[in-house]
Amino acid sequence: MPRYALRLEFCGTGFVGWQRQADGLSLQQVIEEAAAPLNRGEPPLATAAGRTDAGVHAEAMVVDLMLAAELPPERVREAINARTAPHPVVALAAARVANDWSARFACTGRAYRYRVMNRSARPALEAGRLWHVKRRLDAEAMHASAQRLLGRHDFSAFRAAACQAKSPLRTLDRLEVSRLGEEVVIVAEARSFLHHQVRNLVGTLVEVGAGKRGVDWPRQLLDGRDRTKAGQTAPAEGLVFVAARYDPEPEWV
Amino acid sequence: MPRYALRLEFCGTGFVGWQRQADGLSLQQVIEEAAAPLNRGEPPLATAAGRTDAGVHAEAMVVDLMLAAELPPERVREAINARTAPHPVVALAAARVANDWSARFACTGRAYRYRVMNRSARPALEAGRLWHVKRRLDAEAMHASAQRLLGRHDFSAFRAAACQAKSPLRTLDRLEVSRLGEEVVIVAEARSFLHHQVRNLVGTLVEVGAGKRGVDWPRQLLDGRDRTKAGQTAPAEGLVFVAARYDPEPEWV
Repeated sequence: MPRYALRLEFCGTGFVGWQRQADGLSLQQVIEEAAAPLNRGEPPLATAAGRTDAGVHAEAMVVDLMLAAELPPERVREAINARTAPHPVVALAAARVANDWSARFACTGRAYRYRVMNRSARPALEAGRLWHVKRRLDAEAMHASAQRLLGRHDFSAFRAAACQAKSPLRTLDRLEVSRLGEEVVIVAEARSFLHHQVRNLVGTLVEVGAGKRGVDWPRQLLDGRDRTKAGQTAPAEGLVFVAARYDPEPEWV
Repeated sequence: MPRYALRLEFCGTGFVGWQRQADGLSLQQVIEEAAAPLNRGEPPLATAAGRTDAGVHAEAMVVDLMLAAELPPERVREAINARTAPHPVVALAAARVANDWSARFACTGRAYRYRVMNRSARPALEAGRLWHVKRRLDAEAMHASAQRLLGRHDFSAFRAAACQAKSPLRTLDRLEVSRLGEEVVIVAEARSFLHHQVRNLVGTLVEVGAGKRGVDWPRQLLDGRDRTKAGQTAPAEGLVFVAARYDPEPEWV
């Protein structure tokens, strides 16, 4: 049976996350049910490059699924978009991929953006899209601190207790912090991340930015490998999955 | 009694617009009820620089209201923000203004931004925040066309039937169209606008961008002064009120 890749945009607010759960609507369920009419009425299994948490958004999540019939990818894309409405989930692009291709295992790089609204008033126009931190953050200090975490390390200190990865070793390729007016924006890139790794890194860097901890503290935490010592897990709502990279890239249409 | 100015951010989705209506919740009602505890329990009358339509958003709407007591503006701002929750409406800043000051009549300039999502897939992550136009738009043609509308004119061709302004004469100071990736963004500035003027200008320019009409068409419409001939009224959801200017500016805190 032919396999297809989809590049999805979704607003994670109100979903239980990517993965199917007994207690609410998942993005996986929305996509699988939207694809069912293309698969003799059976929802196909959809696998994603990143299993995002409840409330996390995506500008470009890549998933794969097998369908019963050979179809032009444009048609797969349009059929899915017609059936995901009114949910805030769309396929921006689709591609025919090799039958053994995997959005998860073929992925060579994942990128996230995290947005902090750093002002007195809570967010109104973009409520649910960023973390509200009132205390003035020093983005330059956060950036300097973040640079000491780059490279290949045991990231146990920034790993969720529930993380199922076999190894805590990861290579952090990029962790940039910058201020854009009232927003502090963090961009993180790695081949793969541990569960809650980005949100734990952000929660820790915010303590540096707020002046509660020194610039050296996150690196000391990393070296200590003790999750109980790191900063809080930043809320899901500020996080957006922005890119999944492949070599070669699927032929998107 | 002392008068205060507030600079508001709000998401207009789900509201009937700025002005109180019998059939739903208005932004005016949310602000007036949030201010009531500062006014011996009576909701004060709030007047806005722009009476936005249902679904229109604001990054910086300015309003004024009188309160029973002299209070530090910081306290007015915080008290209102504590009471507008959970509605997506916040006061970004407050100021004590002269007792006869008016956010509406003292305003020397108003600016709006209009966002068009110009791609095949409907918006997901920013649903309710932009107008979805599938057909590829030529933003440069739209911009060239827009420049021919600048200056002082009778804008009857772009005025809503329900417009209550005494004169259709307005001075359009800025109407810029640019492409930012998949978005086409229109920025409009004038001392004041007629009812639906920005949305009618956008709807007309989109016909030029889609190649259905020539670059000269909007100016011909303007000169013809006949509303029945112009393009459609662009949907409210793409519109954001971004600035109200005053000379002097209120002393915002």
